[in-house]
Amino acid sequence: MVLYIIGLGLTGTDISLNGLEILKNCKHIYLESYTSILMDSDTNQLESLIGKTVIIVDRYFVEMKFESILQDSILNNIALLIVGDVFAATTHTDLYLRGIKQGIPIKIVHNISIINAISVTGLQLYRFGQIVSIPFFEESWKPTSFVDKIIENIKINCHTLCLLDIKVKEQTLENLMKGNKTYEPPRYMTINTAIKQLLELTNTDVLGDNTLAIGVARLGSKTQKIVSGTLKELESIDFGAPLHSLVICAPKLHDLESEFFQLYRDVNCDINF
Amino acid sequence: MVLYIIGLGLTGTDISLNGLEILKNCKHIYLESYTSILMDSDTNQLESLIGKTVIIVDRYFVEMKFESILQDSILNNIALLIVGDVFAATTHTDLYLRGIKQGIPIKIVHNISIINAISVTGLQLYRFGQIVSIPFFEESWKPTSFVDKIIENIKINCHTLCLLDIKVKEQTLENLMKGNKTYEPPRYMTINTAIKQLLELTNTDVLGDNTLAIGVARLGSKTQKIVSGTLKELESIDFGAPLHSLVICAPKLHDLESEFFQLYRDVNCDINF
Repeated sequence: MVLYIIGLGLTGTDISLNGLEILKNCKHIYLESYTSILMDSDTNQLESLIGKTVIIVDRYFVEMKFESILQDSILNNIALLIVGDVFAATTHTDLYLRGIKQGIPIKIVHNISIINAISVTGLQLYRFGQIVSIPFFEESWKPTSFVDKIIENIKINCHTLCLLDIKVKEQTLENLMKGNKTYEPPRYMTINTAIKQLLELTNTDVLGDNTLAIGVARLGSKTQKIVSGTLKELESIDFGAPLHSLVICAPKLHDLESEFFQLYRDVNCDINF
Repeated sequence: MVLYIIGLGLTGTDISLNGLEILKNCKHIYLESYTSILMDSDTNQLESLIGKTVIIVDRYFVEMKFESILQDSILNNIALLIVGDVFAATTHTDLYLRGIKQGIPIKIVHNISIINAISVTGLQLYRFGQIVSIPFFEESWKPTSFVDKIIENIKINCHTLCLLDIKVKEQTLENLMKGNKTYEPPRYMTINTAIKQLLELTNTDVLGDNTLAIGVARLGSKTQKIVSGTLKELESIDFGAPLHSLVICAPKLHDLESEFFQLYRDVNCDINF
């Protein structure tokens, strides 16, 4: 039989017709819930759409129990659902390779990712440089490599998509050492925190308070919010519930990009995108 | 009422549930057919899926008659379908702005784009630099800027996605001058032509015969073909029918990326992705 790895896109109704047809023929359906979250929809909604039970699985399950999923897929059609597109996170490319090496037939069903949908900002996709991830700073751990990458992009006049950290099912050091299966509440980095952290590391004419940026919250959902401005301006804007992302603009915007930037500049702009 | 601009994704069954529901409430449905083509499906298939007539429109129609579409959408729900995602081409961002400025409610429904689905190569999306387009060379027109951009990406150890030219409904200069509405057959650039043109402009240790690359044909379809190798090796491989794309690899591949590269290296590899 086949193991299908199926992208769900950004919201609960982004699933493709192709993906939906496949799910009708799958015995077990798993939903990976730690590299992203589903907006606009909960598991119940997804289940009623599919007409089957969806088993939500965490990082531990996917990484450690993947062998049993592979074995199961020898006898049954199995689906692993991923929010966004399938190969956006390294974890899933790794799983894919493990399966292929064992000779298991695996098929991929793509879907939207923030990596293309970010074009709703009006910034041209071909002008995006390398993507960066901004991790939550810890007292003793403040990585700086994302700043270097943003500056590399700025130097070649490219935009940077910044993906913001998600902490799901994290344990405190104390609980981890005691072996307590108690997890901290999930944390999703806000645009405000991302900017605060960034400006803590650098604040120059190249990348600092006055750099133009666009904040994007809940992309693709009905409550999507997009605001453009300087980093300083965006730092204090309330973007609401997760997920948030941030784009650092290239130093020079094209005409069309500038027009979009103006469109999103008015915080109270009520255009429904 | 609303003008919906809806991404169709890469194949005829990539349309999302959300998109499909919206189409059921649209009076007129247009399919833009000049920035990309639909694979695995023709208009008939799409129409039977939707249960309505789909009007295929060319560049002239979309750019010149857009005002009438906008006017129509004041009274009726109208949909403009785009292969891939909505804002991948500058044309559509322009149309969007024109509508918004006139106060027309426009809603976007995203879908897969080659820009995220290219991750099926196993190359990590966050390591892609700016995207380039490789245009068909003419006798008197051989633009070189795409080579400069690829080299910029190579210098910061990033991959480059190269989108290959599409010529649809082109007229010869003679027919254009005579006002004959006779169009040339459509031309879709092959991976082979792209590499030949690239190596004509540059062939050094930085970017040349021995540079690693991955050719991708008919991405997301059942006949998808992916082969990795040096540019020299890929130049003579038959990738079959359009659409083709080419990725120039970063100088250093990560371990997982190398494993995928090896997987795709065997031309006769019959893994069904």
